[in-house]
Amino acid sequence: MFRASRIVKQQVASAALKERVGRKSFLDKLKTADELVGLFKNDMHIGWSGFTGVGYPKMVPAALADHVEKNNLQDDPATKLKFNLYVGASTGPETENRWAELDMLSRRYPHQVGKSIAKGINEGRISFADQHLSKFPQDLEDGFYTLNKKHGNPNYPLDYALVEATEILEDGSLILGASVGATPEILKSAEKIIVEVNTALPSFRGLHDIAPSYPPPYRQPLLISHPSDRIGLTSMPVDPERVIAIVESNKPDNTSQNAPQDDVSRAIGSHLISFFSDEVAAGRLPPNLLPLQSGIGNIANAVIGALEDSPFEHLTVWTEVLQDSFIPLLDSNKLDFASATSLRFSPEKFEHLISNWDQYRDRLLLRPQQVANSPEIIRRLGVIASNTPLEVDIYSHINSTLVGGTRCMNGLGGSGDFLRNARLSCVHTPSTRPTKSDPHGISCIVAFASHIDHTEHDIDVIVTEQGLADIRGLSPRERAPVIINKCAHPVYRDQLMEYYDRSLHECLKRGAAHEPHMLRNAHKMHTNLLEHGTMKLDKWDP
Amino acid sequence: MFRASRIVKQQVASAALKERVGRKSFLDKLKTADELVGLFKNDMHIGWSGFTGVGYPKMVPAALADHVEKNNLQDDPATKLKFNLYVGASTGPETENRWAELDMLSRRYPHQVGKSIAKGINEGRISFADQHLSKFPQDLEDGFYTLNKKHGNPNYPLDYALVEATEILEDGSLILGASVGATPEILKSAEKIIVEVNTALPSFRGLHDIAPSYPPPYRQPLLISHPSDRIGLTSMPVDPERVIAIVESNKPDNTSQNAPQDDVSRAIGSHLISFFSDEVAAGRLPPNLLPLQSGIGNIANAVIGALEDSPFEHLTVWTEVLQDSFIPLLDSNKLDFASATSLRFSPEKFEHLISNWDQYRDRLLLRPQQVANSPEIIRRLGVIASNTPLEVDIYSHINSTLVGGTRCMNGLGGSGDFLRNARLSCVHTPSTRPTKSDPHGISCIVAFASHIDHTEHDIDVIVTEQGLADIRGLSPRERAPVIINKCAHPVYRDQLMEYYDRSLHECLKRGAAHEPHMLRNAHKMHTNLLEHGTMKLDKWDP
Repeated sequence: MFRASRIVKQQVASAALKERVGRKSFLDKLKTADELVGLFKNDMHIGWSGFTGVGYPKMVPAALADHVEKNNLQDDPATKLKFNLYVGASTGPETENRWAELDMLSRRYPHQVGKSIAKGINEGRISFADQHLSKFPQDLEDGFYTLNKKHGNPNYPLDYALVEATEILEDGSLILGASVGATPEILKSAEKIIVEVNTALPSFRGLHDIAPSYPPPYRQPLLISHPSDRIGLTSMPVDPERVIAIVESNKPDNTSQNAPQDDVSRAIGSHLISFFSDEVAAGRLPPNLLPLQSGIGNIANAVIGALEDSPFEHLTVWTEVLQDSFIPLLDSNKLDFASATSLRFSPEKFEHLISNWDQYRDRLLLRPQQVANSPEIIRRLGVIASNTPLEVDIYSHINSTLVGGTRCMNGLGGSGDFLRNARLSCVHTPSTRPTKSDPHGISCIVAFASHIDHTEHDIDVIVTEQGLADIRGLSPRERAPVIINKCAHPVYRDQLMEYYDRSLHECLKRGAAHEPHMLRNAHKMHTNLLEHGTMKLDKWDP
Repeated sequence: MFRASRIVKQQVASAALKERVGRKSFLDKLKTADELVGLFKNDMHIGWSGFTGVGYPKMVPAALADHVEKNNLQDDPATKLKFNLYVGASTGPETENRWAELDMLSRRYPHQVGKSIAKGINEGRISFADQHLSKFPQDLEDGFYTLNKKHGNPNYPLDYALVEATEILEDGSLILGASVGATPEILKSAEKIIVEVNTALPSFRGLHDIAPSYPPPYRQPLLISHPSDRIGLTSMPVDPERVIAIVESNKPDNTSQNAPQDDVSRAIGSHLISFFSDEVAAGRLPPNLLPLQSGIGNIANAVIGALEDSPFEHLTVWTEVLQDSFIPLLDSNKLDFASATSLRFSPEKFEHLISNWDQYRDRLLLRPQQVANSPEIIRRLGVIASNTPLEVDIYSHINSTLVGGTRCMNGLGGSGDFLRNARLSCVHTPSTRPTKSDPHGISCIVAFASHIDHTEHDIDVIVTEQGLADIRGLSPRERAPVIINKCAHPVYRDQLMEYYDRSLHECLKRGAAHEPHMLRNAHKMHTNLLEHGTMKLDKWDP
């Protein structure tokens, strides 16, 4: 396959591509995606650019999937192609999720979005491990994920990097696409590099701030004291000898619409804005707040939406991903500056951004996820973080990832980076979710989280549509009643207070009541859900 | 009481004291501890200097305790004196633990060591909340612990700061004692300051590096790229108008001997050193390793002891607390430099340090805990962290604080700061602990941690005397067998593997097997311990 490709090597570069490739020698390496398919062998370790579904390679992954599908490769263990795939966060569904559908993934670190991937993980076919997004690039580069790799060049954890660029400069460095993510470290970690130059997008020259990253003991301070501070280059340097091919790409990022707001998410947004106002009035926050981080989903969008109607001005944003909801804030000049590692806009908003680029270019910056999610900067700037977990327990332990403690949803993302290091750590969730048989079958406030991603030490504020629990400075025994009374849905309040009261009583009796629990019943709401489709219990003890 | 003290105000300063107080106007504020007792009212918020039992105020706390005890103040609600006490970490047992014995504590944040305090916390009489030691000073300064404080000056979270110094300079700034901890922020947060000048200790001028700390949005980068880098002053600036009294102190820090090594801790130390050697051989660690952090206890001491017999040279240390075990490493010149926030030496080693000060003065530095425990610096330096938890579960969730999920031991300390941000995060524990009825009644490897302080996302290596589990890069399903087989005691291995196998089987059946559990049995080892004095089960399901 590779030999065949060498024969037809003289691809004709389109005018659009020629305009985007400043390093002319790279044009000799022009290939079609189909020509590259034969390079990929079973069990290889591959890194892609991409973060939250933008900036990912589109051509080669699709060609590989086509190749596997057309030739029924997965039917035979001898021809099967399964890969270990590493991406800063998630990519478009037509790539990684399709690979999962075709059983092409044996490992997918450290994040994923896609029904087929989740299915593969939960059915035991795909190995997945969550990792804080700030730490993943370092672990990858240091070879932590490939300790047992037996093939290929031992100096490189990855066999291939597939990276999307929107331009290649004369010095060979890359102007990336709509995300930076872990691309710098993926490029450093790969023996061979394939660059997809996307001519369907404009060149994003100027949008990125690529700081050099050195591993310890050579790592340097990240000298950012304001979200707009630049500490790097606009392009990503790359070793030209390791670039074995460039491919022209003509596919846009495959994003969808933002999740719409509803009454619940609007109520949560309003509780949070009113809390921020109180903090400003008390002098604990400046009038323009502190740099904001916001997760993904309809509640996050509602919070950002609520800011639009708030009195706060000259806001700044220090976050992972910018979504549609930020555009009105920028347009109304309420938001001065936003720093992130990806621009995940819907096709319409993306079009809007490109058409009005002059309005936005000096107010947006994309950085590597090691910088965007850096504990150093999040703590220094005093970011206000808000994220949506799956469930929260009565002492404020947070489950962000595993339904029922065992089934992987998406992944941790940067929630730990932000909640641990933020000046104010807020989590927001509806108080209940429906099951098939009960519109309030799942309480998002539980006795003991069935899985814990963030601990009680990291949370300041919990919000549901029912209210806001300000748990700063409270001991566990003070915290539980506040969380139950402010945040739990009324149909679960008595049940949770009974758990707390009985736990307190029992633990006081044996002098062990710092954080009261009845361990025998700690997960009873979850086991009842499995058996009876609701977390509503008849009684705590039989 | 205060009036009486004003009459006898002209205390005579000893020659030793005069030599230590450069700001002469402070000598006019000289008081005895007894004279100050009347200043303290019930429910006040008080901050002390101190960290891991050194550098804490000794005179005024003792005088207050004497006053309470002699006058039986706690027998009558009208005369009762209970305080909210904030210290960077722990102090000597004759101060905070005695206060707890006398029921003088209503709140004690964010750390504690002492049987009577733990008893008060677990019996519901003392409010306690654990907090990462890097975050505590900021939360204190920002008023998070005193949101509901009703008395006193609203500009200051604390009513009083009691701080030990070993010298006061002409500009009024303080040369602190054997710890820095949260003293800078406690001084900033207190309406009134009392300085105990300890003339029983030498002046520790030159030992400290006090960087200024500004809250966001003014916080600045901490420009430390090597453990020996200085970024601040040797003394702590203080607002002289808020210094209302100085007291001469003549009591040394009340430290005890280090916990001795035993076979178990030596085996753990040896596993860890051999792992480090392999990492150096693989090129993943430099030959002098990376800066080391080490917790407290006999295992930590054994690890440091094992380094002495290791081939590693030019070691550096970036940690919270330096203990006796570091002295031989310094003496043999294996250790180039050590940075910490406290020097917790036994009386003999402390004497040795002082007598040989010239040998050590350029190789030790104490910093504020906000710097020593800073995620920024720990991650930048790539610290190798090792800490002893209470229990570890089969997926590497860590319980560091709560026995049986409810009873507070000491506190979290800086374990989260270090384990989350370290380049290599190691936890070490004996595989079992005895109960009254069973020498292996408690397995430190459990099915589901009864409390979670550190999550699976933060741990690289688990060590018991049985062996070392290198879980870097492993998914949960890969991790469990490795942890069980390498680390669990043989008497618990089958039981834990049965839990894992049955959990996997059940979760695969319902397509929810990313991190398999049987939630109904998750805490069964703990409930069995409560009921039968051992974690050994007859069977998992009845």
